[in-house]
Amino acid sequence: MARILPEQIIALVDEFAKLPSIGPKTAERLTMYLVRHGDPTRLAGALNGVRDGLGFCAQCHSYATAELCDLCQDNSRDDDSIVVVAQPLDIVAIEKIGSYRGRYHVLHGVLSPIDGVGPAQLKLDSLVSRVQAVSPREVILATNATVEGETTALYVARLLIPHGVKVTRLAHGLPVGADVEYADQVTLGRALAGRTELAA
Amino acid sequence: MARILPEQIIALVDEFAKLPSIGPKTAERLTMYLVRHGDPTRLAGALNGVRDGLGFCAQCHSYATAELCDLCQDNSRDDDSIVVVAQPLDIVAIEKIGSYRGRYHVLHGVLSPIDGVGPAQLKLDSLVSRVQAVSPREVILATNATVEGETTALYVARLLIPHGVKVTRLAHGLPVGADVEYADQVTLGRALAGRTELAA
Repeated sequence: MARILPEQIIALVDEFAKLPSIGPKTAERLTMYLVRHGDPTRLAGALNGVRDGLGFCAQCHSYATAELCDLCQDNSRDDDSIVVVAQPLDIVAIEKIGSYRGRYHVLHGVLSPIDGVGPAQLKLDSLVSRVQAVSPREVILATNATVEGETTALYVARLLIPHGVKVTRLAHGLPVGADVEYADQVTLGRALAGRTELAA
Repeated sequence: MARILPEQIIALVDEFAKLPSIGPKTAERLTMYLVRHGDPTRLAGALNGVRDGLGFCAQCHSYATAELCDLCQDNSRDDDSIVVVAQPLDIVAIEKIGSYRGRYHVLHGVLSPIDGVGPAQLKLDSLVSRVQAVSPREVILATNATVEGETTALYVARLLIPHGVKVTRLAHGLPVGADVEYADQVTLGRALAGRTELAA
């Protein structure tokens, strides 16, 4: 059968379609956009360079190109608190709030026996060592509000509390802008349990 | 301010975010997937090669790496009909039906005065020349069922009918699987007007 479109176009569609959340139609659209209007070589350059010298920070385990990542090297940050996240992108989300000035620790996953992820697969030993070495005032557990995220938070809390550090968890409740009417009962239950008192 | 993630990761996120239908969150997810699990250099290779020797078919104006595209070179195809489409991807969609064995012609756009696309911007002269040279039995207009697509189809029809060729248009009606109850009135009106008689 004759090819409908030239080989190199089909090759690029196929590569795009391998990416998560990119279906065949989107892969076709992205390819056509790059063939017509975009700059495929710029994206290619960024792809080729993305792993150059890329490693993990020796302290927080986020991505880094030196021994320590920029955030760990930044002396203006507060050593008194550590936010524990599952993956490096969670740091980006929390930094976007703009108000947190402390440190981070990336677990690189959450406890999930079904996926074969136990405590040994997470960066827990180095977290305990950090807490012992730095004695932060507070460790804030910022794993997802999922079963795995909750389980991991509980596990980390039990691991750290004996070391005399205050361990906190992100609040659960109604997302900003949400309707009580449409909130699911679990979220609403957590919002009720975690209700806060208003000042007079 | 310290960078939250290394420069090359941010560069790749930025490049992905330039693509249509890729928002910043998806760009982050795609980048993280490629950094961790995927093969960024394979996608880079496909991107670098996508424009290599790529041109347009001298006959149908679809993408081609030779003077003629594979479909135009294929002698087993039927010269008796030409399907007129707005862009090369439309050929892929029609080929997927599996039953059309004729030729194609790509207009490279639809008439859209608001975007500055007039008849001179479309591959209309070569379509008229092809119709004159080949004298196909039928020209099937397969532009989108939008205002621009309809206008273009009418324009092309008026251009070709004087040359003694039968010009047809894709049928409008209920998409397969659709409920009459939920169909919009314009579609339902076209489905009623285009009703077909059932054999006894």
